[in-house]
Amino acid sequence: MEYNPAFISRSNFVKAAAIFSKPGKAELSRIAPQLIAWLRSRGYRVYVDRETQRYSEGDDTFDRVDMAAQKPQFVVVLGGDGTLLAAARAVSVAGIPVLGVNLGSLGFLTEVPLEELYSTLEALDRDRCTTETRSMLRCQLLRGGTAIATYDALNDVVVNKSAIARLANLDLYIDQEFVSSYKADGLIIATPTGSTAYSLSAGGPILTPLVDAFVITPVSAHSLAHRPLVVRDSVEVSVQVNTEEEEAYLSVDGQVGIRVVHGDRVTCRKSEHRVRLLRMQRTFFEVLRTKLKWGQT
Amino acid sequence: MEYNPAFISRSNFVKAAAIFSKPGKAELSRIAPQLIAWLRSRGYRVYVDRETQRYSEGDDTFDRVDMAAQKPQFVVVLGGDGTLLAAARAVSVAGIPVLGVNLGSLGFLTEVPLEELYSTLEALDRDRCTTETRSMLRCQLLRGGTAIATYDALNDVVVNKSAIARLANLDLYIDQEFVSSYKADGLIIATPTGSTAYSLSAGGPILTPLVDAFVITPVSAHSLAHRPLVVRDSVEVSVQVNTEEEEAYLSVDGQVGIRVVHGDRVTCRKSEHRVRLLRMQRTFFEVLRTKLKWGQT
Amino acid sequence: MEYNPAFISRSNFVKAAAIFSKPGKAELSRIAPQLIAWLRSRGYRVYVDRETQRYSEGDDTFDRVDMAAQKPQFVVVLGGDGTLLAAARAVSVAGIPVLGVNLGSLGFLTEVPLEELYSTLEALDRDRCTTETRSMLRCQLLRGGTAIATYDALNDVVVNKSAIARLANLDLYIDQEFVSSYKADGLIIATPTGSTAYSLSAGGPILTPLVDAFVITPVSAHSLAHRPLVVRDSVEVSVQVNTEEEEAYLSVDGQVGIRVVHGDRVTCRKSEHRVRLLRMQRTFFEVLRTKLKWGQT
Amino acid sequence: MEYNPAFISRSNFVKAAAIFSKPGKAELSRIAPQLIAWLRSRGYRVYVDRETQRYSEGDDTFDRVDMAAQKPQFVVVLGGDGTLLAAARAVSVAGIPVLGVNLGSLGFLTEVPLEELYSTLEALDRDRCTTETRSMLRCQLLRGGTAIATYDALNDVVVNKSAIARLANLDLYIDQEFVSSYKADGLIIATPTGSTAYSLSAGGPILTPLVDAFVITPVSAHSLAHRPLVVRDSVEVSVQVNTEEEEAYLSVDGQVGIRVVHGDRVTCRKSEHRVRLLRMQRTFFEVLRTKLKWGQT
Repeated sequence: MEYNPAFISRSNFVKAAAIFSKPGKAELSRIAPQLIAWLRSRGYRVYVDRETQRYSEGDDTFDRVDMAAQKPQFVVVLGGDGTLLAAARAVSVAGIPVLGVNLGSLGFLTEVPLEELYSTLEALDRDRCTTETRSMLRCQLLRGGTAIATYDALNDVVVNKSAIARLANLDLYIDQEFVSSYKADGLIIATPTGSTAYSLSAGGPILTPLVDAFVITPVSAHSLAHRPLVVRDSVEVSVQVNTEEEEAYLSVDGQVGIRVVHGDRVTCRKSEHRVRLLRMQRTFFEVLRTKLKWGQT
Repeated sequence: MEYNPAFISRSNFVKAAAIFSKPGKAELSRIAPQLIAWLRSRGYRVYVDRETQRYSEGDDTFDRVDMAAQKPQFVVVLGGDGTLLAAARAVSVAGIPVLGVNLGSLGFLTEVPLEELYSTLEALDRDRCTTETRSMLRCQLLRGGTAIATYDALNDVVVNKSAIARLANLDLYIDQEFVSSYKADGLIIATPTGSTAYSLSAGGPILTPLVDAFVITPVSAHSLAHRPLVVRDSVEVSVQVNTEEEEAYLSVDGQVGIRVVHGDRVTCRKSEHRVRLLRMQRTFFEVLRTKLKWGQT
Repeated sequence: MEYNPAFISRSNFVKAAAIFSKPGKAELSRIAPQLIAWLRSRGYRVYVDRETQRYSEGDDTFDRVDMAAQKPQFVVVLGGDGTLLAAARAVSVAGIPVLGVNLGSLGFLTEVPLEELYSTLEALDRDRCTTETRSMLRCQLLRGGTAIATYDALNDVVVNKSAIARLANLDLYIDQEFVSSYKADGLIIATPTGSTAYSLSAGGPILTPLVDAFVITPVSAHSLAHRPLVVRDSVEVSVQVNTEEEEAYLSVDGQVGIRVVHGDRVTCRKSEHRVRLLRMQRTFFEVLRTKLKWGQT
Repeated sequence: MEYNPAFISRSNFVKAAAIFSKPGKAELSRIAPQLIAWLRSRGYRVYVDRETQRYSEGDDTFDRVDMAAQKPQFVVVLGGDGTLLAAARAVSVAGIPVLGVNLGSLGFLTEVPLEELYSTLEALDRDRCTTETRSMLRCQLLRGGTAIATYDALNDVVVNKSAIARLANLDLYIDQEFVSSYKADGLIIATPTGSTAYSLSAGGPILTPLVDAFVITPVSAHSLAHRPLVVRDSVEVSVQVNTEEEEAYLSVDGQVGIRVVHGDRVTCRKSEHRVRLLRMQRTFFEVLRTKLKWGQT
């Protein structure tokens, strides 16, 4: 760590942690203040997002997108996989590790139950946590050849039809080579992390977290021969929108929705950013078995 | 037929036929006038929809929904399955048979190729065509317990999420009994006819046309254990919309799109109306083999 | 158990019940004698199969196939779905109702848990049980045009490749009309009852028990366009074995295995026999939800 | 054929080629002698397998397994994917490239049509062919902890139930970590090359040839939540046979069948051997589009 504590003027804090919370969870009024108090008692400066701010006093509040600039040592996410996806995208640029605590059922990304929160933080404070690095997709929306929007996705990039459209016409290219035209509800490009999310529901395979690949999964493809396609994560995946009259939408991690039009091109590559997940004892296969209820017949 | 030819004043026509055309097909400028001339030469009064009217002169033009009132002996559809679905819904109320002519590739419903059009009409004129009766779904949208819209569907009734929503929460009931909650892109209720359309793309089975059943197929269900469900066509299938913040839509045969809100209920029963398809020599399995390219390895 | 066997003579019995047990279940040494005693105390003559006979004394023992001739009022199956399938086939010829008691996890057919056995029998004894009638498949194996074997199936009839064969070549006919050739691991013809068994694992839909249909589900079909096919249960489904060098097998309810050769034909129709299942309070959808863990996310 | 064999002596050969043929193809009597003559006219010594030997004279005949020792510059396979799989396994140990010529329909591995055979060989002779390297699986069968058989697979390693068994009980381990127990017809471990073969029929995804991964695909898994699993090709995949009474079999590339028993363990790793496929102009996606009939609606 290159900082010099002597130059820290704002406070005596030499460590910092950030908290992101899922909106609208009643139990946060109990959990958030406890967590903040615990962190402060261990000498952490605490940054909170606008949601968490409702349950805290005197802590530094930032919008999600500005949080990375504060360079906390780690982020605690109180919520579900959706909250973690937003937090991860916000801080991945700074390589800050994320700890996902589920307020409810086990998530693929929020694997720490509330009752293990403090023991996990203890371990983290003593540097006894390991991080697992997850790849992200860098997605660009090109209109008339110009990039008009850029996003990082931890789970997936989806181009899909609108609710009232019958289907979307999408052309897939890998490294500029034409692969196929798809008449479908949509096309999902997912990371290994995202392979257990929407792609799985649409019939895609499970990729273990460290496979150097992406999976391209069509949703309700008109042709029965269109199947999920696993490609190296060093390629460029492009989806050309050929839907003339019908509407289509681009979404990123299920959270950003932007209308796309005929001729638009959505291009995905491996992002230079990666998400560092703080993990405790659960392995990927343990989470799989629990979430998918394997072996409970 | 109860009419008395002596009372027909408008013309010498004792027979009538109607034509529905797919919008925007260039070849109609050649095909439609020929077809109209042929029908008139055989003594048919010819009714045309607004699309066909562009290619005709002096024929009676009606909006689709009013066509049934003219009681043509049969309807010729020039186009694809989409055009036939609209025509079939319009005239099913009067039990008028429909002949589907494809302008392009074979359809499941428009199985007569253009080159067989006149030989088929000859057979039809000599009463040597058989009709195949297809069941329809009667769908009601209930809001606050009141039916605010009613539709007949030849293919399917679909409740699905909007493009930017993450998923829809839908509760399924069969004859008022709760079956399951679905977190999914949508739920399809399809007739046997519709089982080869959207339901098939979403992973549903093929029902032969005369099976007395409907199939309920979830689209990208969150739970991997949710599978297509085949029920008797004497039951009532209801879908309760539990999606609170997110948008959802009801569509009928892929053509009617209406926004539904939390608490709405979509109820489907077998319709009293049925569609009579004029068929020539092709059997259902021949069409299946051609459309799905079975056996072409 | 309070009854005194000394007072019961054979001629006092006006009622009879039969018991079939799953081989090798240790708990039967406790359960079977209790059940026999209970039945005798209520005035039932008790017939047992060879497995149950190991745990009983002085009861009438019959092979499964001969049990129907004794015409018990009902059959109690102690075991799983496999045991019930065998019992049902044995007694369906006489229309004897079957009560399935699971010794372990809930089965689709053995839905009564052990702790409800005696309350169910009480209800049954007072004629307050309803029976649900399930259709069966009558399967014939034809070699050189001659029927060399005939079976009734409650779940399914399967023609599949041997373990070391690469695939089976099977031609499907519906009412003598050729449907398609399948290169596949096998073809399953299932009743609605069997739709939740092997057919479901192979990708087939769930048919509610009273749908008048069968489902034909290919297993690992070479062609991706081959999908489960639901047909009316009034048709004849035939599978012609075209596998020249490779071995293929016919199995019935997963229990009878017979080698079939090139040119053999397996023909299925709805059987004249039906299975009467004694049901208590659980509906089909309740069993589905529990067995498939619907809604437990 | 213009060359005069009288002028060719063994010592004149500085190059060598081998030919493997698919058994029982009538057209080989025309094709094989022509090919041999062409190769000799270009100064190749020609080695043939026992099948090809039926159509040749004076050429050196070897069993498939001994062919690699002759170190030909390349192998020409006349046949289908099955013949190529056998040839590839035989010569991969020596890194000899393989040219697959299809006698009939396009194969995923035998992509050169007969009419392009000689132009391809010309290109090959002038060193203008590229080779594509495909990874293989090294599979070991362990009984009581001892390896009793070892195989290399280009497509897949399969453990499956016998035809008359109801299902196989298989435990999956990745790098010694337990993943899940499978009740299924079988488990397929496939290379990217094999992902378009049996695994695809069983519901697996398509892996592009250069993805550094294997895919583990269950066949008709009892649990609906068991899905294909894509793992890095640096891991060890083990399948433990837990099937007590039932029979199970191990097969390699659909060609080797060996009975396995309770307690056996099948272990797969990336092989040190790789297959070098000679490719001309067709890309993987072109072959996919043709084989799977993508875009032909």
